[in-house]
Amino acid sequence: MQDSQEYKDKKAYFDKIITLYGRNVVVEVLQDSSVEVHKLHMASSNKPDGAIKTILALAKTRKIEITYHEKSSLSRISKNAKQDQGVAVDIIAQTYKSAHEIKDMKSFRLIALDGIQNPQNLGMIIRSCAAGNVDGIILPKKSSAKISPLVIKASSGTLFKLPIYYCNTLDEIFPDLDADTRIYSLSSHAKTSIYDVVPTEKSIFVLGNESDGVSPEVEKLCNDSISIPMQRGVESLNVAVTASLLAFMK
Amino acid sequence: MQDSQEYKDKKAYFDKIITLYGRNVVVEVLQDSSVEVHKLHMASSNKPDGAIKTILALAKTRKIEITYHEKSSLSRISKNAKQDQGVAVDIIAQTYKSAHEIKDMKSFRLIALDGIQNPQNLGMIIRSCAAGNVDGIILPKKSSAKISPLVIKASSGTLFKLPIYYCNTLDEIFPDLDADTRIYSLSSHAKTSIYDVVPTEKSIFVLGNESDGVSPEVEKLCNDSISIPMQRGVESLNVAVTASLLAFMK
Repeated sequence: MQDSQEYKDKKAYFDKIITLYGRNVVVEVLQDSSVEVHKLHMASSNKPDGAIKTILALAKTRKIEITYHEKSSLSRISKNAKQDQGVAVDIIAQTYKSAHEIKDMKSFRLIALDGIQNPQNLGMIIRSCAAGNVDGIILPKKSSAKISPLVIKASSGTLFKLPIYYCNTLDEIFPDLDADTRIYSLSSHAKTSIYDVVPTEKSIFVLGNESDGVSPEVEKLCNDSISIPMQRGVESLNVAVTASLLAFMK
Repeated sequence: MQDSQEYKDKKAYFDKIITLYGRNVVVEVLQDSSVEVHKLHMASSNKPDGAIKTILALAKTRKIEITYHEKSSLSRISKNAKQDQGVAVDIIAQTYKSAHEIKDMKSFRLIALDGIQNPQNLGMIIRSCAAGNVDGIILPKKSSAKISPLVIKASSGTLFKLPIYYCNTLDEIFPDLDADTRIYSLSSHAKTSIYDVVPTEKSIFVLGNESDGVSPEVEKLCNDSISIPMQRGVESLNVAVTASLLAFMK
């Protein structure tokens, strides 16, 4: 029983870890004392000058564990050999939670992402949702952009302000939710306007892929499909703009 | 008198000309029969294969005038030697109007841009404003991103749907407007919320530069400074998101 709890705590801890990479990003992360750092990874081939020197000094000051790796192993950690520049950092995102927690929440307005590919869009969505009136984002690991330096840059320092509920796929989460949860998919073809939606205590708005919209598998788990009324025959909005309009809806 | 009118008509015609460049962009422009083309410019060094072959065929079908230039003269036309790929096209944007026309308009809700630099932001602003409830954008030639292939791409085919009022600087336009025109600058520091603004018959919302906001020269021509209320201590929104929230304000 004790073991089981320990295992659960450990799993919850590791689930909150996000690995970032690139020298400038790692310097920024280490300089921001509000970001909890688990571990720093360095390629043993890095020359200890310039940004590397800064990184080592910051790690020393903050007493952060450093592990050295062959360049190829480091790339397996960063998962981005082209852009890691021999440096990766594991950070602990306290706002990163399992989407399985949602079913126990009493009220929420969430934005779920179904296949958002562009890191800039993801960053902008995080920024607008953090600033707006939503309680978090549901971000599936499969088929979505991952939290990366590009996402962090576009989020403009807001990534750790907003709960992000991770899951593998949305269809592992939606069927478990209470029957009084309303799930809306956004679609430019939908006849119901977002302005006619009366938000309930538990609402989820699903935004789909930049080109293809919400996937058929997720669509069939939604209660209704809604659209933003547009002028001048414009067919669609940027997905981050749609997220922003939802986030600032009264 | 006749001459003067002819001159004015000619000036108005040339004021509506936007020069675009790059082989893919030119192919797209020529394929879109709704875009009026004034003239095609080609570097005489272009080999007549691939995209160039397509461009020549399209120009022939549409009976478009072609002028050949030395590579260096072509770059002076495109104003982007690095990216023109030896091709430029003058298009006639009927939605491109002089901002001096605004003072004669009876009612309007406009978004004025003061130093927007990022072409992607400009494109997204055009897209959201075209889809939303504004009557146009005021775009100063000085200190703002120009209409370019990047802007067109980000506008997602909406550039020619929305009136764009050009001027050199905003301070050549604002002082001429009726006293009942309300000009609001957006600022994250402002105490008045955008939700407390009661839009009048003639309203202009000014959005400033991505880093520095509205410039002091323009700020002093505004009637009030307003902000979008934000949660979680977020300090600002992406400027294209701000434009979108304004464009979809009821």
